Amino acid sequence: VSLLLVDGREAGAIDPRDRGLAYGDGLFETVAVVDGRARFFDWHCERLESGAARLRMPAPARALLGEEIQRVAPPGRSVVKVLVTRGNGARGYRPPAEIQPRRVVAALEWPERDPSCWTRGVRVRWCRTRLGRNPALAGIKHLNRLEQVLARAEWRDESIAEGLMMDDRGLVIGGTQTNLILATAEGFVTPSLVDCGVAGVMRRAFMGWAAEQGIPVGERAVTAAEAAAARGLLLTNALIGSWPVRELDARDLEPLRCAAEFNAWLERQ
Amino acid sequence: VSLLLVDGREAGAIDPRDRGLAYGDGLFETVAVVDGRARFFDWHCERLESGAARLRMPAPARALLGEEIQRVAPPGRSVVKVLVTRGNGARGYRPPAEIQPRRVVAALEWPERDPSCWTRGVRVRWCRTRLGRNPALAGIKHLNRLEQVLARAEWRDESIAEGLMMDDRGLVIGGTQTNLILATAEGFVTPSLVDCGVAGVMRRAFMGWAAEQGIPVGERAVTAAEAAAARGLLLTNALIGSWPVRELDARDLEPLRCAAEFNAWLERQ
Repeated sequence: VSLLLVDGREAGAIDPRDRGLAYGDGLFETVAVVDGRARFFDWHCERLESGAARLRMPAPARALLGEEIQRVAPPGRSVVKVLVTRGNGARGYRPPAEIQPRRVVAALEWPERDPSCWTRGVRVRWCRTRLGRNPALAGIKHLNRLEQVLARAEWRDESIAEGLMMDDRGLVIGGTQTNLILATAEGFVTPSLVDCGVAGVMRRAFMGWAAEQGIPVGERAVTAAEAAAARGLLLTNALIGSWPVRELDARDLEPLRCAAEFNAWLERQ
Repeated sequence: VSLLLVDGREAGAIDPRDRGLAYGDGLFETVAVVDGRARFFDWHCERLESGAARLRMPAPARALLGEEIQRVAPPGRSVVKVLVTRGNGARGYRPPAEIQPRRVVAALEWPERDPSCWTRGVRVRWCRTRLGRNPALAGIKHLNRLEQVLARAEWRDESIAEGLMMDDRGLVIGGTQTNLILATAEGFVTPSLVDCGVAGVMRRAFMGWAAEQGIPVGERAVTAAEAAAARGLLLTNALIGSWPVRELDARDLEPLRCAAEFNAWLERQ
């Protein structure tokens, strides 16, 4: 069993009155720890802090988080999940005047994947479950994730790596746990996240890498038809880096070679 | 401290890997217990069961829930909160193949309110926070409640009892923790909940009572302008029964007398 800290204590449990449980009133981060180093640590902290500001709750200090990630991470590669809630509350939605946030930092095994995901690419499907739009919650990684749960429950075929989700207007937002990059005639394009979706740390890294290559990444509305007709597609998240897509709903796609270039750059970070 | 059961055990705590905490992957009910009897118990169970079917997870047996509500409820009036989650999961949104749901049943104090709420009526405001629309999650009482949390955080004035919320199109859905009934020339009207909102047990009771009186209750789209111009407004929830609205954003409203009639009927149930 891997190590888990609740407010810095081992073997801690969660109070049943926690508002994270009651209302999903909190935030999380999934951090890749490689050789004892939390990859893109500052960007994970930035997103956590901007989420906390949006929800008007305190974020944990970066030094404390960094220390606890080091404490739980085993040698080698691992995943550390950080979860922060508004802490206990009385009955009712109203946030307490004095917030005592709760913090969970837990090490999880690095997920083993077929290496061909990075080279040959992955098979992807469209999800029927749509994303509701709410700019007040868009971009941040909050704990209200039932849409993703329902979408991920749509398939059991292990050879399908990810499902793409649209909002209620039919605009593509991204995968259930990944962001989407399209290669188009105008350069890279990634769906705008002003109405829904999570602004991924690896999406940010990809945009930084693309800028270094002198290739713009446009953030804008993307229709399903446009995604399906793109020259190529990439999926990104904090653990995988980037995967090219080789099949979207039984239609073959040319795996983008830039995925390998980005992943090689990522290994040097 | 009032009694709280986790899977039937006193002083139970929540496993930090619970999916209710991680994703809001679960449901809840807030039940009024009056003289040892859980009011509208079967309707609360029905909503819990329909929510569980929607989320594809098991609901607790009614007999078990009824027994645990009796165990925790103190003499007299109390509130019992029932919370059901999909239980523990590994990392990732995908629901586990074998679901071991977790159940919290907790007694809370009956909230004391100024008796004038029922007679003179309450002051109500409009919330800026909107509700995103997702028919897959509409109507059920799931644990993804950040929109209500943000809306309820908009005001601290204790003399304002409730805030009304609109969806992203500007249609009124209800209060942060209540359903809304309008009195109009065509009879009663209540906002349609096919896209968002919670189908309240007391809303259902009100519709049943109105039908007994031979007054139809139309369920349909309601604009903010229409709500503001209604002959009168009522708020309903499982604890309060119904409150007439006497003021909406500083505009006086005539408190509906039918609230008292409904509440008197409710006392006889």
